[in-house]
Amino acid sequence: MSSATAIAHANIALIKYWGNRDDALRIPANGSISMNLASLTTRTTVRFSASLYSDCLILNGRPVAGAGLERVRLILDWVRARAGVGASAEVVSENNFPTGAGIASSASAFAALALAASHAAGLSLTEIDLSRLARRGSGSACRSVPGGFVEWHPGNDDTDSYAVSIAPPEHWDLVDCIAIVHAGPKAVGSGEGHVLAWTSPIQAARVADAPRRLDLCRRALLNRDFDALAAVIELDSDLMHAVMMTSRPPLLYWQAATITVFHAVRNWRAQGLPVAYTVDAGPNVHVICPNQVHVEVSRRLRNLPGVQEVLVAPVGGPAHLEE
Amino acid sequence: MSSATAIAHANIALIKYWGNRDDALRIPANGSISMNLASLTTRTTVRFSASLYSDCLILNGRPVAGAGLERVRLILDWVRARAGVGASAEVVSENNFPTGAGIASSASAFAALALAASHAAGLSLTEIDLSRLARRGSGSACRSVPGGFVEWHPGNDDTDSYAVSIAPPEHWDLVDCIAIVHAGPKAVGSGEGHVLAWTSPIQAARVADAPRRLDLCRRALLNRDFDALAAVIELDSDLMHAVMMTSRPPLLYWQAATITVFHAVRNWRAQGLPVAYTVDAGPNVHVICPNQVHVEVSRRLRNLPGVQEVLVAPVGGPAHLEE
Repeated sequence: MSSATAIAHANIALIKYWGNRDDALRIPANGSISMNLASLTTRTTVRFSASLYSDCLILNGRPVAGAGLERVRLILDWVRARAGVGASAEVVSENNFPTGAGIASSASAFAALALAASHAAGLSLTEIDLSRLARRGSGSACRSVPGGFVEWHPGNDDTDSYAVSIAPPEHWDLVDCIAIVHAGPKAVGSGEGHVLAWTSPIQAARVADAPRRLDLCRRALLNRDFDALAAVIELDSDLMHAVMMTSRPPLLYWQAATITVFHAVRNWRAQGLPVAYTVDAGPNVHVICPNQVHVEVSRRLRNLPGVQEVLVAPVGGPAHLEE
Repeated sequence: MSSATAIAHANIALIKYWGNRDDALRIPANGSISMNLASLTTRTTVRFSASLYSDCLILNGRPVAGAGLERVRLILDWVRARAGVGASAEVVSENNFPTGAGIASSASAFAALALAASHAAGLSLTEIDLSRLARRGSGSACRSVPGGFVEWHPGNDDTDSYAVSIAPPEHWDLVDCIAIVHAGPKAVGSGEGHVLAWTSPIQAARVADAPRRLDLCRRALLNRDFDALAAVIELDSDLMHAVMMTSRPPLLYWQAATITVFHAVRNWRAQGLPVAYTVDAGPNVHVICPNQVHVEVSRRLRNLPGVQEVLVAPVGGPAHLEE
């Protein structure tokens, strides 16, 4: 049997995904837009072998069982059925970024897995089919399949819910300076969080307004209009966290230093420095800025109270097989 | 001519007022519920005198002109027209709480002014008419006219938009422990903020859901059900701040220490201490608890990083004339 190794990047959502229309298939309530993060990668090798007794998963050097393995098996089973493969698989996956740093690894992980597993099984899937497959493992993983700036069309079912590139990495040399304010694991993972979204009295309004925000963000990206981008991504991030905070039970992912960074970013922008914040389902703040100011932005972020570390990521390309 | 002195308490909204249907008359978008704060008072003396050249306002020992005086004159003019008084008035007003501490003083100020001015002019208004009059000066002032736990019925126009007591102070001996985290003046006052409310994509959903939250809060108060009260007041406060944060321009009143207090309050409640937070248009956190735990709650709050001071206020009575 055959093996393959794939590399995929994490991505940061500029217009957020929160809440599903179909939880099992991860059909999202609204579309989303993201950029891939070049320096945050998952490298995954899948090897199908008749000599394996069952599927196994080695994540960052440690064997994983239970729910983590079951989620990987969903992807392997889909690939086996499509390729007519009966063998079990060994999946070895490594993140080059600290797993404890609060950076979501499921997007890059399932994008790399979808590509490596399908290739190892002899399938040659289109980018759209890979994106659909990655989506079944983790919704936002569908956005780590295409390169650069990516939009996930929510679709209505499994066939039309996938992500496409709307601009390549070289379109706009933005950088994500990730202010790590809390490196511990999340109290509530985003998987459970998505299910709670509809308990908030404002999720429906957030979703109804999403096409407008997607338009504003897409246009800002295509026109390289930083001020417009800043306004819409901060609004969209705050709307997602507003839904989280007002769901039942409430999810307050922000920490004190999260707010410190928000105020600093707005003050710096008012002073003329092009910066904007966005926050995923955690306390760390992704500060987006043009490449030419990222050294200054990172320096300022490191000096803020409560910021432990700053990771820097330019725009990344698509998921790809290792040469 | 005659003079009168009135005393009124500040109030903390448990279900918040944010956004008007009529900005000039301060007809609110939704009803609200509050409790008066016994230890935070405004004492106001109004003296009509034919020898005064024009109205004058002395606030905390200093003369006030411009917009502050104009707002007071709105109330004086209404009273003069109703009472057939032509004389100018001297208004002397003192807050017993630090004006710079970020505690809104307009509610207690306009409740005391409405009562003192109408009495000085020889009018004997009903509590409802006093509440309507105070509302014209500052919306939330209508809630500082009745005593104890108070509900503001939003109404449709000037005649039916006023507040009534739903339970007297002795109904439930709650205490508000106010964690002062930032004592500076606000960047944007709540007057301008109300006008921005409708620029948020979630204000309409917040308003539409308000009757449900009012029911939950009213029932929790009447049943002295602390857990139910905690859930609904934290939700309502977070909803108001979500609207503020997502309005255009965005209003982020929270500071880092605001979030520190949120997490602490939730942790303490999970451990069995009955506490709940609510935040007005500012960064300070009002921590509501039963009287028997307020010493412990205040002590814990003072030990949190970023908390500068804790003011303690039991439930207060109605606006009243000084004996």
